[in-house]
Amino acid sequence: NSYRIASIPGDGIGLEVVSATIQVIEKLAKTLGTFNINFEHIPWGTAYYKQTGRYVSEDYLDTLRRYDAILFGAVGSPDVPDHISLWGLLLALRGPLQLYANVRPVRTFPGTKCPLNTARNGIDWILVRENSEGEYAGQGGRSHIGQQWEAATEVALFTRVGIERIMRFAFETARSRPRKFLTVVTKSNSMRNGMVLWDEIAGLVAKDFPDVSWDKMLVDAMTVRMVMKPESLDTIVGTNLHMDILSDLAAALAGSIGVAPSSNLDPTRKSPSIFEPVHGSAFDITGKGVANPVATFWSAAEMLIWIGEKDAAAQLMGCVERVCAKGILTRDLGGSSDTQGVVDAVCLEIEKL
Amino acid sequence: NSYRIASIPGDGIGLEVVSATIQVIEKLAKTLGTFNINFEHIPWGTAYYKQTGRYVSEDYLDTLRRYDAILFGAVGSPDVPDHISLWGLLLALRGPLQLYANVRPVRTFPGTKCPLNTARNGIDWILVRENSEGEYAGQGGRSHIGQQWEAATEVALFTRVGIERIMRFAFETARSRPRKFLTVVTKSNSMRNGMVLWDEIAGLVAKDFPDVSWDKMLVDAMTVRMVMKPESLDTIVGTNLHMDILSDLAAALAGSIGVAPSSNLDPTRKSPSIFEPVHGSAFDITGKGVANPVATFWSAAEMLIWIGEKDAAAQLMGCVERVCAKGILTRDLGGSSDTQGVVDAVCLEIEKL
Ligand SMILES: CC(C)[C@H](C(=O)O)[C@@H](O)C(=O)O
Ligand SMILES: CC(C)[C@H](C(=O)O)[C@@H](O)C(=O)O
Repeated sequence: NSYRIASIPGDGIGLEVVSATIQVIEKLAKTLGTFNINFEHIPWGTAYYKQTGRYVSEDYLDTLRRYDAILFGAVGSPDVPDHISLWGLLLALRGPLQLYANVRPVRTFPGTKCPLNTARNGIDWILVRENSEGEYAGQGGRSHIGQQWEAATEVALFTRVGIERIMRFAFETARSRPRKFLTVVTKSNSMRNGMVLWDEIAGLVAKDFPDVSWDKMLVDAMTVRMVMKPESLDTIVGTNLHMDILSDLAAALAGSIGVAPSSNLDPTRKSPSIFEPVHGSAFDITGKGVANPVATFWSAAEMLIWIGEKDAAAQLMGCVERVCAKGILTRDLGGSSDTQGVVDAVCLEIEKL
Repeated sequence: NSYRIASIPGDGIGLEVVSATIQVIEKLAKTLGTFNINFEHIPWGTAYYKQTGRYVSEDYLDTLRRYDAILFGAVGSPDVPDHISLWGLLLALRGPLQLYANVRPVRTFPGTKCPLNTARNGIDWILVRENSEGEYAGQGGRSHIGQQWEAATEVALFTRVGIERIMRFAFETARSRPRKFLTVVTKSNSMRNGMVLWDEIAGLVAKDFPDVSWDKMLVDAMTVRMVMKPESLDTIVGTNLHMDILSDLAAALAGSIGVAPSSNLDPTRKSPSIFEPVHGSAFDITGKGVANPVATFWSAAEMLIWIGEKDAAAQLMGCVERVCAKGILTRDLGGSSDTQGVVDAVCLEIEKL
């Protein structure tokens, strides 16, 4: 039970929330005494880029394959165009490592206020995002740059393999939950190729899961259902872009993007999976010590589950929820604590275990 | 002041809401006596398709060019794949007629309940959707159909002309409103071609509108802002797909998709513009006489503004709002009225003008 974790804090508040999380996880490991965990710092990000011209080292995929998992902070800096920084680091990992399942649990969390008055019993969803192709396949181009007749394309690429594997993963996720219910999101009324293929494959894969009930939604109508009938949903699957959008919406509807975690999984376990908060580098609050570390705590808990430490993950989440329920919260949630204050409170809870 | 309007009820509840609206507009014209309006019925839709193999007549574009405007109901039928019906009718009009500006006003409306507790002073937005290209350019395909290595693409095509004209239209729309504030939505961190071009052109066009302030949002983060800080927004512009999604979300956040109108405009006025409710054909309630006609009333009011009858439009909206405020509402809004009940109540208000 000894794990090697690569920690890539990246940019902005990534450094603060990852360092906060390492403190908490090390405390947890020491207190429980049931597993060992070692974090090794990898300095990739915008500072590294400014020194070397690259966001990652040349042998970065091999480097990462030596680890059991990766804890990631954020990437993005005001002085580099976002499409350079994102494709330089985060998107250079998700696709090439074939981390095809991005999993985003969303639920009303102690200390956050749900902005909806339609969710009487709270929200409890799992969003499964295809994470290796689709709108993020990186295809497309620009021609006649600067001319009046300039034309540019963004090409979303979908493969049968890519769709089928995420669909199986989503049905399995739905099956593992009490309601056993999956909603498949597409936009096959206006998009007649890849989106129709999604619909077809959903129908085929569903046959292997007779115990899971499912339905289909168009991505636009899905936003209405999330707002108006949040309790009618449970597990949700969709394309890379659609779920990028819907997962931010989901986090907001549940009360805060500041607690939303995300797992980038290779379900075949050939590559190490990446665990990261959904929020970004947030340069407006960087360096002030006020970043909300809860999304990264939760991401680390998902990491513990993935590497096999389910009980430790449950203990951690219990401690975090108790701290939040007591109102020990950062400012984004209306509290008055700073990052270290939340870390200390969680460590204190861990000591009581 | 005499107008010829093509009415295309289409499918499902389209027939009910368009017939309801024609009654109301004819009553309005008769009562005010300031303009003449003639609706000519065009039977395109799924029934027509089943008889002729086409959703529209062969010379459909020429046919439509004879009218001052088009009042559209809905298209889509459970027994025809949506991508066939939509591209057969609605999408066969928007692009080919170069109705490049889809305008969707969204505001909290009498009789609807806002599901958000973050919008103290209500919602009042104008969403401007690029309506002729982007993700709806109709490009892409499928290869190796049925093989394990099948691959499909959806190609979003953006042109400098297409982006620039919608951007100018959006800045002009923003300028016409008290707050003079525009938010430009893109996804230029993950999409490096057409989306970066959007950002560039936004910056260029903005220079011609020094009196309009503006900012940029990524489409995912935009959903969070719409939920958390609805009052920070006013006019919003984005791509065909992004605004398809955000306009449904906006209507839900304001209280109901059942009142949301939509204008498909050719700002050059070479083609007749199309006015249609945002809701679809809703086959589950078709033929029951319970469809909510308010979105189509509001769409017709937008049509009256467009053809030059601004006062009549204001009178109409006043009547509709008074009826809704009295609680004369269809079931989707929690009322007990049927479609004709709402029509009769609005006509009664019109008589009082
Ligand atoms: C930072 C950005 C590229 C990323 C994405 O769009 O995937 C983020 O929004 C996310 O959801 O993880
Ligand atoms: C019916 C469908 C093709 C259409 C769209 O996606 O544009 C609808 O959702 C809309 O928003 O007008």
